[in-house]
Amino acid sequence: MSEVRSKAQLAKQAAFSLGKLSTDEKNQALIIMADALIQRAADIIEANAEDLRLGEEGGTSASLLDRLALNEARIKAIAEGLRQIAELPDPIGDILETIERPNGLSIVKKRVPLGVIGIIYEARPNVTVDAAGLCLKTGNAVVLRGGSSALASNRKIVEVLHEAMERTALPKDALQLIEDPNRSSVDEMLKLRGMLDVIIPRGGSSLIQNVVMNSTVPVIETGAGICHTYLDASAEPSMAAAISINAKVQRPSVCNAMETLLVHADYAKSNMTALAEAFGERKVELRGCERTLQYAPWATEATTEDYATEYNDYILNVKIVDHLDEAIAHISKYGTKHSECIVTESADHANRFLQEVDAAAVYHNASTRFTDGFEFGFGAEIGISTQKLHARGPMGLPALTSSKYVIIGSGQIRE
Amino acid sequence: MSEVRSKAQLAKQAAFSLGKLSTDEKNQALIIMADALIQRAADIIEANAEDLRLGEEGGTSASLLDRLALNEARIKAIAEGLRQIAELPDPIGDILETIERPNGLSIVKKRVPLGVIGIIYEARPNVTVDAAGLCLKTGNAVVLRGGSSALASNRKIVEVLHEAMERTALPKDALQLIEDPNRSSVDEMLKLRGMLDVIIPRGGSSLIQNVVMNSTVPVIETGAGICHTYLDASAEPSMAAAISINAKVQRPSVCNAMETLLVHADYAKSNMTALAEAFGERKVELRGCERTLQYAPWATEATTEDYATEYNDYILNVKIVDHLDEAIAHISKYGTKHSECIVTESADHANRFLQEVDAAAVYHNASTRFTDGFEFGFGAEIGISTQKLHARGPMGLPALTSSKYVIIGSGQIRE
Repeated sequence: MSEVRSKAQLAKQAAFSLGKLSTDEKNQALIIMADALIQRAADIIEANAEDLRLGEEGGTSASLLDRLALNEARIKAIAEGLRQIAELPDPIGDILETIERPNGLSIVKKRVPLGVIGIIYEARPNVTVDAAGLCLKTGNAVVLRGGSSALASNRKIVEVLHEAMERTALPKDALQLIEDPNRSSVDEMLKLRGMLDVIIPRGGSSLIQNVVMNSTVPVIETGAGICHTYLDASAEPSMAAAISINAKVQRPSVCNAMETLLVHADYAKSNMTALAEAFGERKVELRGCERTLQYAPWATEATTEDYATEYNDYILNVKIVDHLDEAIAHISKYGTKHSECIVTESADHANRFLQEVDAAAVYHNASTRFTDGFEFGFGAEIGISTQKLHARGPMGLPALTSSKYVIIGSGQIRE
Repeated sequence: MSEVRSKAQLAKQAAFSLGKLSTDEKNQALIIMADALIQRAADIIEANAEDLRLGEEGGTSASLLDRLALNEARIKAIAEGLRQIAELPDPIGDILETIERPNGLSIVKKRVPLGVIGIIYEARPNVTVDAAGLCLKTGNAVVLRGGSSALASNRKIVEVLHEAMERTALPKDALQLIEDPNRSSVDEMLKLRGMLDVIIPRGGSSLIQNVVMNSTVPVIETGAGICHTYLDASAEPSMAAAISINAKVQRPSVCNAMETLLVHADYAKSNMTALAEAFGERKVELRGCERTLQYAPWATEATTEDYATEYNDYILNVKIVDHLDEAIAHISKYGTKHSECIVTESADHANRFLQEVDAAAVYHNASTRFTDGFEFGFGAEIGISTQKLHARGPMGLPALTSSKYVIIGSGQIRE
């Protein structure tokens, strides 16, 4: 049997006993696992050095190497993340609904684990610990398939976690790492319908596209974010500037950063030149529509392809529109249903935007950068769902659960 | 552009305005549509006669022809179904969660329509009206692809509904019927990711398997039910007999009917002969394990394939087990996570069964036949989900919705 199939099978078997653990047993295990990461930090850093050396030899970019790199401080932060997960309320067993039927049947809808969760991700070794912690806390077994560039780090991390789990009630088999670095191991995971209950891809858009287009296992699509900020005619200029600059430059590499700024023509008349200069000062390259170029002649002209691109970089499209409907139509055409913002003093326009724009998170007068499980107060985040089924927007622990109807009778039969 | 793609596009455009309709507008439209079905019943019956004639010529079985047939009484019942949907509470706009953040952000999670729902089904023309009503009530556009054997009936029904919709606030394009009877039109629907938000298959297992294995659109899997009833050692004999007979024979053709009876050896000793005879009197063919044959020598021996078959017929597998764990292990191996029942007087065994059996609905001392949206009090049902994502078990109106985070700020930016 292949590595993928045999590990998924072990995970499925472990999921059965995992579902029976108490909250205390799971939390204690997470804390013991966090301690082990700290104690074995030197070993993990050594393994990580091997990944970094191979990456450098292979010509990996500095920013990717930075995402891959572990040091004591980062391992401490990762372990701290596990401890925080231990402190969060356990959603498993929560009662979502109770129904008493006239025939005496008592129906209770309870939260239960999903079962076995597959996570497919790239070169961030912190995801290995984070995803394991979130899945195990919610009583799910997890099959991890991290990027091959982090393989040595992930192997060592999972070895350390496995050793720790042996001192806990958590079955070691509930955490599986696929070590086969070939793309075929991803393809195989995508076809494990019946063994995996869900696959969550975390990473760039080509990884996500491969998963959503080829998986027969149900998928929660995450991540892709072409986010817009629309500055309405009545936008308050200092607020509009602060929000749009924050949405673009506070951390351009992430999915909730703005890629296109839509500006009402009247607002542009008084404010576009100054705003374009402010972006220029922050090293943001502007790509504008024809009318934008009148205010910012140094910008290049935006193509329809630009409007459809998630830059994750210091590049911004700017388009001047004549009314709210044009802004909404642009977002409907190019948005990825992630996070969209209107800055306006008009309650009517705000309400229309919030109602009519179809996205996981719609903002009035606040930066799209807030779309995040921690910023929403969830205390954890497994990703940001951009699909409409199951979970939408930042996903905390409840997104990793399913439900079950428990029906108690006293001999009822159907007439 | 193909029929499938152009109709999906019209539906997507219509979904935008549909989402803005009030509950009253939607309810009034459903009532006008119901009235139109009654007024045009003769035309619908005439179109249906054509389907029936073609079916007879093609050698369609009597039971399929019965599912296909419409008469005044059936059309009246279908119209009544629409009126009942109009009376149900509208989940759209419901507030699911409110979060006030320390930075002053106010976050509200609201129910919104899914968008465009694809329904792929077989020869029951009542599904055409039922699915249309449930989707439109929840603000969703719907693309219907019914079985080719009901094409003339479905065409006429949709023509009547379209004419009625023109007298309402509902955009006519929100209801689309794919008329291409070739299998390729189903295949094309399955690849309309980005145009359809979800596909719900309704029908036999080969239809469902085709959808779940080939769709790039997110799917809600419905239907397949290999349901078990386990009679524990302490089961009360008259209750055990009533529940297991009801689960098998009250309506064998449906997904929540029992296919396999598991019997504790001690219970079998005193009760198996009488129970086997009771099934025999009701024309149920028994396929049993070796030990069952000692009590019911006229039964044939059950194969592993039998245990994995959804008969939907007067056939029952019977297996004698030595303890609860063996029953749970059998269900875990052969069940389809639909509905599973234990009959026992032991609270401890009941709790273990309800906890450890992984299914949409788990019963203690009641017939699995109750897994149904109407029996659960939902007032409607679009199907029974056997998957763990999004919705599980009988799906009422909320299963046809998604959510959206609406965030109101006063200029907040992320530090």
